Amino acid sequence: MNEKFERGLKRMAVVDPGLQDRLHHLFGDIAPVLESIIPEFVFGEMYSREGLDPKQRQMLTIASLTNLGDTAIQLDAHIKGALNVGVTPYEVIEVILHCLPYCGFPRVLNAVLTAKKTFAEVGVTVEHPSL
Amino acid sequence: MNEKFERGLKRMAVVDPGLQDRLHHLFGDIAPVLESIIPEFVFGEMYSREGLDPKQRQMLTIASLTNLGDTAIQLDAHIKGALNVGVTPYEVIEVILHCLPYCGFPRVLNAVLTAKKTFAEVGVTVEHPSL
Amino acid sequence: MNEKFERGLKRMAVVDPGLQDRLHHLFGDIAPVLESIIPEFVFGEMYSREGLDPKQRQMLTIASLTNLGDTAIQLDAHIKGALNVGVTPYEVIEVILHCLPYCGFPRVLNAVLTAKKTFAEVGVTVEHPSL
Amino acid sequence: MNEKFERGLKRMAVVDPGLQDRLHHLFGDIAPVLESIIPEFVFGEMYSREGLDPKQRQMLTIASLTNLGDTAIQLDAHIKGALNVGVTPYEVIEVILHCLPYCGFPRVLNAVLTAKKTFAEVGVTVEHPSL
Amino acid sequence: MNEKFERGLKRMAVVDPGLQDRLHHLFGDIAPVLESIIPEFVFGEMYSREGLDPKQRQMLTIASLTNLGDTAIQLDAHIKGALNVGVTPYEVIEVILHCLPYCGFPRVLNAVLTAKKTFAEVGVTVEHPSL
Amino acid sequence: MNEKFERGLKRMAVVDPGLQDRLHHLFGDIAPVLESIIPEFVFGEMYSREGLDPKQRQMLTIASLTNLGDTAIQLDAHIKGALNVGVTPYEVIEVILHCLPYCGFPRVLNAVLTAKKTFAEVGVTVEHPSL
Repeated sequence: MNEKFERGLKRMAVVDPGLQDRLHHLFGDIAPVLESIIPEFVFGEMYSREGLDPKQRQMLTIASLTNLGDTAIQLDAHIKGALNVGVTPYEVIEVILHCLPYCGFPRVLNAVLTAKKTFAEVGVTVEHPSL
Repeated sequence: MNEKFERGLKRMAVVDPGLQDRLHHLFGDIAPVLESIIPEFVFGEMYSREGLDPKQRQMLTIASLTNLGDTAIQLDAHIKGALNVGVTPYEVIEVILHCLPYCGFPRVLNAVLTAKKTFAEVGVTVEHPSL
Repeated sequence: MNEKFERGLKRMAVVDPGLQDRLHHLFGDIAPVLESIIPEFVFGEMYSREGLDPKQRQMLTIASLTNLGDTAIQLDAHIKGALNVGVTPYEVIEVILHCLPYCGFPRVLNAVLTAKKTFAEVGVTVEHPSL
Repeated sequence: MNEKFERGLKRMAVVDPGLQDRLHHLFGDIAPVLESIIPEFVFGEMYSREGLDPKQRQMLTIASLTNLGDTAIQLDAHIKGALNVGVTPYEVIEVILHCLPYCGFPRVLNAVLTAKKTFAEVGVTVEHPSL
Repeated sequence: MNEKFERGLKRMAVVDPGLQDRLHHLFGDIAPVLESIIPEFVFGEMYSREGLDPKQRQMLTIASLTNLGDTAIQLDAHIKGALNVGVTPYEVIEVILHCLPYCGFPRVLNAVLTAKKTFAEVGVTVEHPSL
Repeated sequence: MNEKFERGLKRMAVVDPGLQDRLHHLFGDIAPVLESIIPEFVFGEMYSREGLDPKQRQMLTIASLTNLGDTAIQLDAHIKGALNVGVTPYEVIEVILHCLPYCGFPRVLNAVLTAKKTFAEVGVTVEHPSL
């Protein structure tokens, strides 16, 4: 068996339990390699490295997606993944806001609006310390 | 006095003790507003928010700059800032590598090469757990 | 009182009279800091600087958003803002077209299509001098 | 007559037979110059150069649009154009996947999802050699 | 003769009198089409449109290049072009600063540093109204 | 043994015979994982797929890097790689020029200037059919 793929599937199932099924549904007939390289390379290789814990990795992913733009689908999935590994909704928003000086307002406002939809779908609210 | 500016100067001095002087030297005659809005808005407003600690913020900044590209000057400064607040050289590299699935190899390789120069200048080395 | 915030609210009300309400509605429960830093920093600090008039600033904003991509929401708002400060629909289109050699056709076509929707919603038409 | 415009119209009609009408419908009242410069400059000048054949050009266009992001409308049109000049659906997907190490997963996944919709609309399927 | 090319050469000579020679020197042996399409398409077609004056066009170009990043060579040329058509050094800086909320600090700081070098080479200084 | 890694090393050696040594020299002490994932994932997984030949892949890589910007180091390596698998210098330039309508002039001019340096270093010249 391919060790990285197996390890990646397990890690992927913690971050995004429905992803393997979604990858098969979305890409199985058109780009099936994505069903193997996302678990194997992304989760089995990169997310399985030492040095950063799952919460840190999800935060860095949200920052990456915020900066890149045109990533609403991926942000939605990884915000849910962040909640799954213990990042709070408040921390998700703080991560997005932290990117503001680097990528500017449009990318940050878009990401916050995506988070708002995701939070509503998941049924969580942001608990601000000062609210 | 402007409270945000004062707070920002203090926080900025922890992350990058020479930045105020550099801002004055670089921008004092050409764009002096940068001498006030970088401490006030970036450090006094955004970096002074609750919810994320200084190590987390520097990691998110390094991820942002890696994804954006054409940011070698800023990466150099914020990698030093990360070291100043307790991020290890190893963690800096892990943060950059984590961005790989999102922004691709060119942005990541450029950021690692920048980190290599910065580490050499500062005189630190990467202690990999498995080396 | 915070002078920049007050000045920013006034300027923001000229460019986009409904923005303060929209910011509260969109972000009040999830990222309330945006209700203060958009008026204070964007409009009270940056848009309140001397040297460029409101028409010039809206033109530069439309060019920025065109080049960045994934900014349809912001373009819609700032095209309306441009009309509010006296930029003609024809000038809006010329600003977008001017960006073509720099960011290429896809960003420009997307921005023109956004402008087309915005103009239809507002009820204005483009008066080309040669039509 | 303008030779480049005439040559471009002919070439454009091979790649995307409905484009001239679409350009007129979309831009005729708002940015009519696009009705002339897209045939003249894009197809009559750039796509009419020697050295690359129409299949190669469509592949390079799909790679460009994949890397840029926020280009779903243009990808849809140029994927159809690729099919029109003899690129197979399988090759379209391989071109998009090839961009992965350079622009990362989000841009590639978005482009594959766009291709999936386009293929469904056109009524073609991907014939993988190994399926 | 090609009317757009002739018109473009004249306009280009106003903005950047040395560009035709530089294009020949840089690209004449490797990509000679750039010697014709930059005067013809960029300056003869796009910059020759009505609706915006030369100062406005150079300001929009500087904003575009600031937002795109990795454009130091082009910014240097177009900042000189802006000065040539009557934009003041102070206005150049204000245009760059105006982009800050949209593209963030790294792009703006890089563009200001480029402007600083260009101004030093040309021998102009920024006259701030409040200095 | 890891089959993808072995396959990738062989393919990588065809495209860029010195890359394995360069990766070790550049990244061996700071990010050694790049010594394995570039051969394994980039060349052993992605470049080893069927459907596109090595010339097509190098052309698509050059187009990707042109569009992304801030990729001079990678363009230099992959232009040499293109020459190594039989792409002519003339075709390299045509690939870069083809990207112009999508990413605009600055990215294309930068890439042509990089190619010019690479061609000079390698000692090849562009043979234009019409020169």
